[in-house]
Amino acid sequence: MTKLETTLALLRPPSAEIAADVQRRLDRKTKPLGSLGRLEEVACAVASIRRMPTPELPVKAVVVMAGDHGVADEGVSAFPQAVTGQMVRNFAGGGAAINVLARQAAAQLVVVDMGVKEELPPLPGVRSARVASGTRNMARGPAMTRAEAVRALETGIGIAEELADAGVTLIALGEMGIANTTAASALTAAFTGLSPAEVTGRGTGIDDATWRHKVDVVQRALEVNAAPPGDALDTLARLGGFEIAGLAGVVLGAASRGIPLLTDGFIATAGALAAARIAPDAGGAILASHRSVEAGHRALLHALGKKPLLDLDLRLGEGTGGALAMAIVEASIRVLREMASFDDAGVSGAVR
Amino acid sequence: MTKLETTLALLRPPSAEIAADVQRRLDRKTKPLGSLGRLEEVACAVASIRRMPTPELPVKAVVVMAGDHGVADEGVSAFPQAVTGQMVRNFAGGGAAINVLARQAAAQLVVVDMGVKEELPPLPGVRSARVASGTRNMARGPAMTRAEAVRALETGIGIAEELADAGVTLIALGEMGIANTTAASALTAAFTGLSPAEVTGRGTGIDDATWRHKVDVVQRALEVNAAPPGDALDTLARLGGFEIAGLAGVVLGAASRGIPLLTDGFIATAGALAAARIAPDAGGAILASHRSVEAGHRALLHALGKKPLLDLDLRLGEGTGGALAMAIVEASIRVLREMASFDDAGVSGAVR
Repeated sequence: MTKLETTLALLRPPSAEIAADVQRRLDRKTKPLGSLGRLEEVACAVASIRRMPTPELPVKAVVVMAGDHGVADEGVSAFPQAVTGQMVRNFAGGGAAINVLARQAAAQLVVVDMGVKEELPPLPGVRSARVASGTRNMARGPAMTRAEAVRALETGIGIAEELADAGVTLIALGEMGIANTTAASALTAAFTGLSPAEVTGRGTGIDDATWRHKVDVVQRALEVNAAPPGDALDTLARLGGFEIAGLAGVVLGAASRGIPLLTDGFIATAGALAAARIAPDAGGAILASHRSVEAGHRALLHALGKKPLLDLDLRLGEGTGGALAMAIVEASIRVLREMASFDDAGVSGAVR
Repeated sequence: MTKLETTLALLRPPSAEIAADVQRRLDRKTKPLGSLGRLEEVACAVASIRRMPTPELPVKAVVVMAGDHGVADEGVSAFPQAVTGQMVRNFAGGGAAINVLARQAAAQLVVVDMGVKEELPPLPGVRSARVASGTRNMARGPAMTRAEAVRALETGIGIAEELADAGVTLIALGEMGIANTTAASALTAAFTGLSPAEVTGRGTGIDDATWRHKVDVVQRALEVNAAPPGDALDTLARLGGFEIAGLAGVVLGAASRGIPLLTDGFIATAGALAAARIAPDAGGAILASHRSVEAGHRALLHALGKKPLLDLDLRLGEGTGGALAMAIVEASIRVLREMASFDDAGVSGAVR
């Protein structure tokens, strides 16, 4: 079997019994029933994904994958394509938003060059796993071959496995790639059946004319790249990107090892949905970190059946939403591990 | 002048110039304009409250005030009144939700007995600042005298000053007191003009019949305690509680020293609104941590003009929402302090 096939064979849905056991234990903690709201839900989810009644406090990593997109040639972004490589250098230098928020979360930051157009020199903290110098222009044909998409997926699986072996128990997904909201819009339209206009947003901040053009480009990409229905891997190859497929691989790899994943904004969540379409059981390991300002993000969360933990008007990507949500996840596990029960603390329960 | 008068005389609104300067500097960071959403707003707010262009990373404290309420005699809570004292013991023992979440936030926890009915023995980490053994029943007359309310306010001011002197730069408000949602409902109705039914919720989880009774009790308290219009201190005395007035004092004291405050749920936010009604400039120092499930909380946030950072279906109090939001505030300051600018990092800006 290939690495991808082996990984898919390992996937199981989260344990419903463990979730129910955790809720019963939370109900005996010194607080009114259910009064910690979504913290209780997250504690149940993490325990059921980890298949552990009392998970450890999370050991955290943010995986940021970078790649360039041939569709940038269509003029769909407010920023020049060179910014992808420049931002990878910024990640290496420690000055980007995700460096700051990963520090805040006490999370290891793993930056992966999945196929930036510019050939970057070796950079501290950046792994090179280049599939090619950017994808092809999806408005004219497939962005990736199926073999390229599998290579990107397996790179992501390998990184998740390596992190799991190193003791990481919570992973946030992040990305960088000029024009990758265009790819994410095309994937969202293909996976959900919504129209390009419904799922295409402003990305890094384009004007009305550029937005209408971006919608046209997404429409053309969908027409040129009609994939066989139900073949999610083929859809991902034709409309995705190296970093998006890489993140889908991280989801598959982490889910196969019982590690919960935090989505981020529009692009990372498109990668997460691709993984869940390739293997529905992988969807069980996903936690939605935040609600992005991007129009298509809501559709992705709906398709995944996830409600985000945060709504802070973020639209940056890089894993910033996931890094911020890590504190909420950690708090939920701390509640399960550290709170006293009514019996332990000698506190009276509600009068029934 | 009294301590209260001296404090009120020190209050100033946050600095609009500093907020504008911070936004200009955030606009040069390596990210699309405004893409960190509410983190940018919080960084501007904290800097303008601190009156520092680049505030330090926050040194954090959660102040949890406990008090009992005579109105508990009316049978408005699902829990017996003894739980207030039992929970103070639980705080001392480290097993309550706020102990866990303060640890998560790396915040000092300050627990204050403002007037629990039961005379508690000395407990580790609990300060005694008892005004009396619980307030009087507000359904039959004023809960506190004006002198008692001032004493509670000045206790809160003193604690805020002490924390400020010890280097604390961010304070979250928390409370414990059986029946204190009834007091908070009465204060909310009095301050906003909404009806008791509109601002009375389920508290720790009461049934329909108890809810209707609770609304009646709030209605009676309002009728019995009509305060002179515009006299917020008198309203607070008649309908509040020792812990609510104490928290209002913490707001006044912290605001007078340029320290931002995080509200919590319904009760702590009622204390914050009381402070802002006593001295509108104190309102400038308040950040709303989360949106509670309690019906009246939305009305309080609207009256304060604040939008909460989190919405996690919490309804516990104790400062849990404020403690959780501390990570968001810290992240916003980290962004301001640690992110590179486009120039520093050699990253191209948007194409104009």
